[in-house]
Amino acid sequence: MGSKINIGVIGYGYWGPNLVRNFAEIPGAQVTCVSDFKPELLAKAQARYPAIKVTRDSRDLLKDPTIDAIAIATPVSTHYDLALAALQAGKHVLVEKPMTTTSEQAMRLIDEAEKRNLVLMVDHTFVYTGAVRKMHDLIATKTLGDIYYYDSVRVNLGLFQHDVNVIWDLAVHDLSIMSYLLPSQPYAVSATGMSHVPGEPENIAYLTLFFANNLIAHIHVNWLAPVKVRRTLIGGSQRMIVYDDLEPSEKLKIYDKGITTVNGNTESVYQMLIGYRTGDMWSPKLDVTEALNTEGLHFIDCIQKGDRPITDGQAGLQVVKILEAATQSLKQQGKLIELNRVEVAA
Amino acid sequence: MGSKINIGVIGYGYWGPNLVRNFAEIPGAQVTCVSDFKPELLAKAQARYPAIKVTRDSRDLLKDPTIDAIAIATPVSTHYDLALAALQAGKHVLVEKPMTTTSEQAMRLIDEAEKRNLVLMVDHTFVYTGAVRKMHDLIATKTLGDIYYYDSVRVNLGLFQHDVNVIWDLAVHDLSIMSYLLPSQPYAVSATGMSHVPGEPENIAYLTLFFANNLIAHIHVNWLAPVKVRRTLIGGSQRMIVYDDLEPSEKLKIYDKGITTVNGNTESVYQMLIGYRTGDMWSPKLDVTEALNTEGLHFIDCIQKGDRPITDGQAGLQVVKILEAATQSLKQQGKLIELNRVEVAA
Amino acid sequence: MGSKINIGVIGYGYWGPNLVRNFAEIPGAQVTCVSDFKPELLAKAQARYPAIKVTRDSRDLLKDPTIDAIAIATPVSTHYDLALAALQAGKHVLVEKPMTTTSEQAMRLIDEAEKRNLVLMVDHTFVYTGAVRKMHDLIATKTLGDIYYYDSVRVNLGLFQHDVNVIWDLAVHDLSIMSYLLPSQPYAVSATGMSHVPGEPENIAYLTLFFANNLIAHIHVNWLAPVKVRRTLIGGSQRMIVYDDLEPSEKLKIYDKGITTVNGNTESVYQMLIGYRTGDMWSPKLDVTEALNTEGLHFIDCIQKGDRPITDGQAGLQVVKILEAATQSLKQQGKLIELNRVEVAA
Amino acid sequence: MGSKINIGVIGYGYWGPNLVRNFAEIPGAQVTCVSDFKPELLAKAQARYPAIKVTRDSRDLLKDPTIDAIAIATPVSTHYDLALAALQAGKHVLVEKPMTTTSEQAMRLIDEAEKRNLVLMVDHTFVYTGAVRKMHDLIATKTLGDIYYYDSVRVNLGLFQHDVNVIWDLAVHDLSIMSYLLPSQPYAVSATGMSHVPGEPENIAYLTLFFANNLIAHIHVNWLAPVKVRRTLIGGSQRMIVYDDLEPSEKLKIYDKGITTVNGNTESVYQMLIGYRTGDMWSPKLDVTEALNTEGLHFIDCIQKGDRPITDGQAGLQVVKILEAATQSLKQQGKLIELNRVEVAA
Repeated sequence: MGSKINIGVIGYGYWGPNLVRNFAEIPGAQVTCVSDFKPELLAKAQARYPAIKVTRDSRDLLKDPTIDAIAIATPVSTHYDLALAALQAGKHVLVEKPMTTTSEQAMRLIDEAEKRNLVLMVDHTFVYTGAVRKMHDLIATKTLGDIYYYDSVRVNLGLFQHDVNVIWDLAVHDLSIMSYLLPSQPYAVSATGMSHVPGEPENIAYLTLFFANNLIAHIHVNWLAPVKVRRTLIGGSQRMIVYDDLEPSEKLKIYDKGITTVNGNTESVYQMLIGYRTGDMWSPKLDVTEALNTEGLHFIDCIQKGDRPITDGQAGLQVVKILEAATQSLKQQGKLIELNRVEVAA
Repeated sequence: MGSKINIGVIGYGYWGPNLVRNFAEIPGAQVTCVSDFKPELLAKAQARYPAIKVTRDSRDLLKDPTIDAIAIATPVSTHYDLALAALQAGKHVLVEKPMTTTSEQAMRLIDEAEKRNLVLMVDHTFVYTGAVRKMHDLIATKTLGDIYYYDSVRVNLGLFQHDVNVIWDLAVHDLSIMSYLLPSQPYAVSATGMSHVPGEPENIAYLTLFFANNLIAHIHVNWLAPVKVRRTLIGGSQRMIVYDDLEPSEKLKIYDKGITTVNGNTESVYQMLIGYRTGDMWSPKLDVTEALNTEGLHFIDCIQKGDRPITDGQAGLQVVKILEAATQSLKQQGKLIELNRVEVAA
Repeated sequence: MGSKINIGVIGYGYWGPNLVRNFAEIPGAQVTCVSDFKPELLAKAQARYPAIKVTRDSRDLLKDPTIDAIAIATPVSTHYDLALAALQAGKHVLVEKPMTTTSEQAMRLIDEAEKRNLVLMVDHTFVYTGAVRKMHDLIATKTLGDIYYYDSVRVNLGLFQHDVNVIWDLAVHDLSIMSYLLPSQPYAVSATGMSHVPGEPENIAYLTLFFANNLIAHIHVNWLAPVKVRRTLIGGSQRMIVYDDLEPSEKLKIYDKGITTVNGNTESVYQMLIGYRTGDMWSPKLDVTEALNTEGLHFIDCIQKGDRPITDGQAGLQVVKILEAATQSLKQQGKLIELNRVEVAA
Repeated sequence: MGSKINIGVIGYGYWGPNLVRNFAEIPGAQVTCVSDFKPELLAKAQARYPAIKVTRDSRDLLKDPTIDAIAIATPVSTHYDLALAALQAGKHVLVEKPMTTTSEQAMRLIDEAEKRNLVLMVDHTFVYTGAVRKMHDLIATKTLGDIYYYDSVRVNLGLFQHDVNVIWDLAVHDLSIMSYLLPSQPYAVSATGMSHVPGEPENIAYLTLFFANNLIAHIHVNWLAPVKVRRTLIGGSQRMIVYDDLEPSEKLKIYDKGITTVNGNTESVYQMLIGYRTGDMWSPKLDVTEALNTEGLHFIDCIQKGDRPITDGQAGLQVVKILEAATQSLKQQGKLIELNRVEVAA
C-alpha cells in the first residue's frame, strides 16, 4: 500500500499516450520513464509530463531497478522480444494486443511469467468497458439463457496495415471480447477474405467460429467500408442483445425476444412447432469509466496482490491461436481449421 | 395489342394475392382463373374478384385454352412439376423463387421453354425495385469503378421454415440481386451455419462467394435476430453504396469514398502508399413503383414481343446452383464448393 | 346483444374506406350503406363490398330506419350539418376530427346528443393506439411523477390544405392526445406561424399551451419540411418519455432520468442545488391492434351499454376551442388567448 | 508578419483551456499569460503550458505592454467590465458569447473599440464550423432559393444555470448562427417558457422570430430533455436543409424538395394549385477543422490587417438584443416584442 508501482512505457505512438495518461491518474501507480525510437514523440511526452524521464533505448527501462512493471505499446512484431526481455529483467508486463505474432511466442511468455511469478497481462481493452462487463454479467447470470450465436460487424474506411491483415487488426477486438464473454472456446474456424490492393494483406474478411453446444460466432471486418459500423448481435434462448458501440448513450439493448418450441403432436413427428415471443426492450445504464482506467487499476491490483488478471497470458494466447488459424483458413478459402485447446500445466 | 393476355394463378396463399392484384392493374393483362387447394383461400379470391373463376385443381388452368400464361406461387417443392406441366400445355410461365429445388430441374424447364418458344420467367422481385434498378445503372455505367465486394445482412426474428434452410428462404433474395447487378457469376462458394432447433434446418448462415478479379460477396442470413436488418454494402474502386431497404425514403446512399494507391518510391518496394479519399454522399430519388407491377408489365411485354426476360430461366438456374452449392458447403463447415459455369446453347 | 349495430358511412374519400374496412371486421357491427358525392368512389366501395348499398345522397342514410349509427368522414366544414341531422334522425354519431369548425357548433351537437341520449363520439384515432394508451397508463399511475412538459414535432412535406391552416390539420392530433393524457386542460394558448404561399393558410405554426402547476405544452407543425418527423417528448419529475411514431417497433422509450433538487445550505438561499439522475431506458411492448379497430369496438360498446366514449363530444369540443384560440393568437403573432374552461351541465 | 500576436486569456474554467490550446497551435499567435480567480485552475494551466505566466489578477494582463489582445472566457456578468477595461488598455478583445448582459453594454463596447481602432470580436464559435460555413455558401449562392424558415431544436439534460435562463445559455448558439446565415435580421420576437425548479430561471423555452418577406425562425431549447438533440431545418423555395450537429459524418443533408405553385385556372381564383417536388438528397463533405482554430486564425488576421471580424461587436449586439427581447416576451407569455434595428454610424 505504501509505495506506488513504478511503470515504464515502451512506445509513445498511437496507444502509448493513452497508457501514460491513464496510469498518471491511478493513485497506486506512476509512470517514471517512457521510451520510443522517435525523438519527436519523446519531446511530446516530455512537454506534457515534465517529471517523466524519456529515452530512445527501451533497454534503459529494463535496467532501471526502480521500475516495477513495463507496458508495451509497440508494433506486434516487437512484442515478443520486448516482453520476454522485460520478464527476464523481473518486470511485470502489460502488452498490447495481439499479444504476439505466433502462439509459440505467447506460450513462451506465459511460461516465463509463471516461472518468475510475474504478472503477464494483455491489453484487451474492450473487456474493461462498461458495455462488455455488463454483457458478461448478463451471460454469467443466464439472463440470456443458452447462448446461440455471437455475430459482430466491425467495418470502416482505413487504416490499412502493411504487415498484418484485417483480421489481426480488427477481429482481434471481437476475439478478445468473445474469449471473456462466451461459455467456452471455439474448436474450429473457417475464414474467407480478399485483398483489393496488389501485394497487400487482406482488407476484408469473414470468420466463422464453431463451438460446442451449437454455439456459432461470426466476425465481419473490413478496412474499405463507406460507413463505420461497430455492431454485435448476441442471441440466447431467453433474450438477445444488440451492442452498438457507436451509440453515444444506449450502447446495449436487451430484447426479451425469442422462439418457443414444442414437439408437434401431429401424426408426423418431423416438425417442431415454433412460436415467436416478443416483449419489452431494455437498455441498462452503463459504467462510463474509461476502460483503460479500469484496466490499469486491475493491473496494479494484480501486481500488489499477486492475482492473475482477467486478460492474462492465456487469454492472449487463445486470441493469437485463433488469429493464426483464421489466417491459415483464409489462405485456403474457408477450409476448416481445428483449434487445439490450450493445455497448460496447473 | 388487341386482346389481353389471360393469366391463371396457381396458389393463393402469401404471395398469390399480390400477383393477382398487380396483374389486375396492368392494362394488357387479366387474371381469369385462380387455383388453390384450400377452399377458404378461393373464397377470399372470389369475394375480392367476383369476375375471376376459381378451382381447387390446377390442371383446370392448364386445360383452359383461353389462358395464355401461368403464374406459380406455391411451395418450392411443387414448382418443377407445375411449371413443366404448364410449359407442356403451351403456357408461358412466371414461377416464384427459388425456381426449383435442384439445378437439374431448372435446366429441364429451360430446355422445355426453349423448345416450345415460351417465356419462362422467375419472380426475382427485388430485381424490379427502383433501388436495385438504380444500382444496376450505377454499376453498368462504371460509376462505382471496379466492384470490390457485395456484402449483405438480411436478418430478423422468424419465419422459421421446416423444409428449407435459411439460405433458401432469405439468401435467395441477395443471390437474385447479385445475379442481376454483378459483372460476373461466382466460381465458388463457402458457407457456414447452424441450427438451434433440434431436427430443424439451419436458421443462421453465412455465405462467401468468390468471383474473378478479386470480387468477393458475402451474405449473412438469420431467422433468430432481435432486430430486422436489410442492409447491403457495395464497395467499388471509385464509389461505394449503402443500400438499406428499411429506410423509408433514402434507401440508397452513394459515397464518394475510397482509397488511392501508388507505388511507394522508397528503397523498399514492398509497400504501397495508400491514401484515403472522402467526398460527398448522394442519395438519388428512386422510382417507387411497386416492383411486382414493373415485373408484371415486363412479363406481358416479353410474351407479346417474344423477348427474353431479365430474370429468365438462366437467372433462376444460376441462383439454384448457388443455393445447392452453399447447402453442400454448409454441411461441411465451410468447405469450398466450385460452381460450374452454366453453359447454354446459343 | 343479438342483432348487429347497423352503420352508415358518409364520405368514402381518404378516411371513409378505413372506417368501412374496420367496422366490417368488428363482430357486433355491419356497414349497410355508404354515401358520397362522387360516383367513382361509390363504385370502388361497391366493387369491394358488394353487399353494401351505396347512394350519392347522405339523407338516404338518415331516413333509413334500419341504420343505428352514422360515421362521418367528410370535410370539416360539413361535420356540423351532417352530425346534427344524424342526431336529429335519432342516430348515434362518430364524427371525424376536428369535430366542427367552431366551438359553438360543437356545444350544439353535445346538447343535441345529451337531449336524445345518443352516443356522440369524435374520431380522435391516436387515442386508441397502443402507444398512447400505454402513455396514459404510465401517466395515470404516476410513473413519470408530476408532468412538466409535453413537446411534439409533427412535420412533413405536404399535404397543403386550402380551407384550414396547418394547426387544424396536424396539431389537432396532438391536441386530441394531450386532452386524453394530461392531468388538466390548458388555460391559455400562444401561437405563431406563417404562410409561404400567397393567399393560402399558414403552412408552419408553433403553439404553446399553458396549464396549471407549471405544466407547459408545445406543438410544432409544418407542411413544408424536408423530412417527416413525428416525435413527442414528455418530461416528468421522475421519468421522461420519447414517443416516436415513425419507429417501426420501439415507438416508446421511457428514460429513468431527471433532476434532483435540494435547497443549497450556503449563506445565499437564492440557489437550489441541482443534481442529474440517469438510469436505464425501457421500451415496453405495445399492443399493435389497429387503432381504428379498437376505436370501432369502443363505439359499438358505448352504443350497446349507453356509455360515454373516451373521446366524447366534450373531448372534441376541447380540441376545437384550442384550435380556435390558437388561430386567433396566430393572427396576432403570439398574443396570449385565454381559454374558458368548458362548463357542462352534469 | 515578423512577430507573433501576444494573447492574454482571462478565465481558465470550461472554455478557457480550449482558447489556450487553439491559440497555441496558431503560428501567428502565442498565449503569454492566463488569469483566473482559482489557484487550482492556474496550476493546471501551468502544468500543461510551463512557458505561460499565470496570475489571479486579470489586471496584470491589462497592464502588460507586451500583450496585444485579450480573450475573455468568464461568466457573462463580468464580460462588460473586463472587455471595457481591456479596450481602454489598448488591447484587442475576443469575448465569449453572449457578449454582454445588456444591449447598452454591447453598444458601449462597440463604441470604445471603434474609437480606439481596436478589433472587438465575439466568440460565436458555431459560425466558424464547416457545417455553418457550408450553409452560408448555400444560402449566399441562392442554392436554397428564398429562405422560408429556420427551425432549431437544441435540448438535453442539464446543465442548469442559476443566473441566466435557458435562452441565454442555449438559444444564443442559434441566434449567432442565424445572424450569420439569414439574409436579414428579425423585426420582432415572441417567446414562451417555464421554470420547473422553484426560484430558478426558465429551463424550457420556445422563441419565434419574425423577419421581413415571410421568413420565420423558431428555436426550441430545454435543459430537461431525456435525449440530446441538435437539429435544425432550413426551408427554402428551391431546396431544404437538415443540419444535425450530432451526426458524426453527415451533419448536413440538402434535399431537392419543395412545392410548386400556379394560379388555379378554375372559375374560383381563390386557390393555388400546389404540387410537390422531391428529388435527390445530397450530403456535402465538410471542412473538419476545429472551429476555434479557424476562429483564432480569423481573429489574428483581423488584428494584423485591421479588418472587421465576421462575428464583430454588431453581431454580438444583435444577439444580445434578441436575448433581451425574448426574455421580456417570456415574462409576458408570448407577447410580441419589437426589435429596433441596430443603427451604426458608417
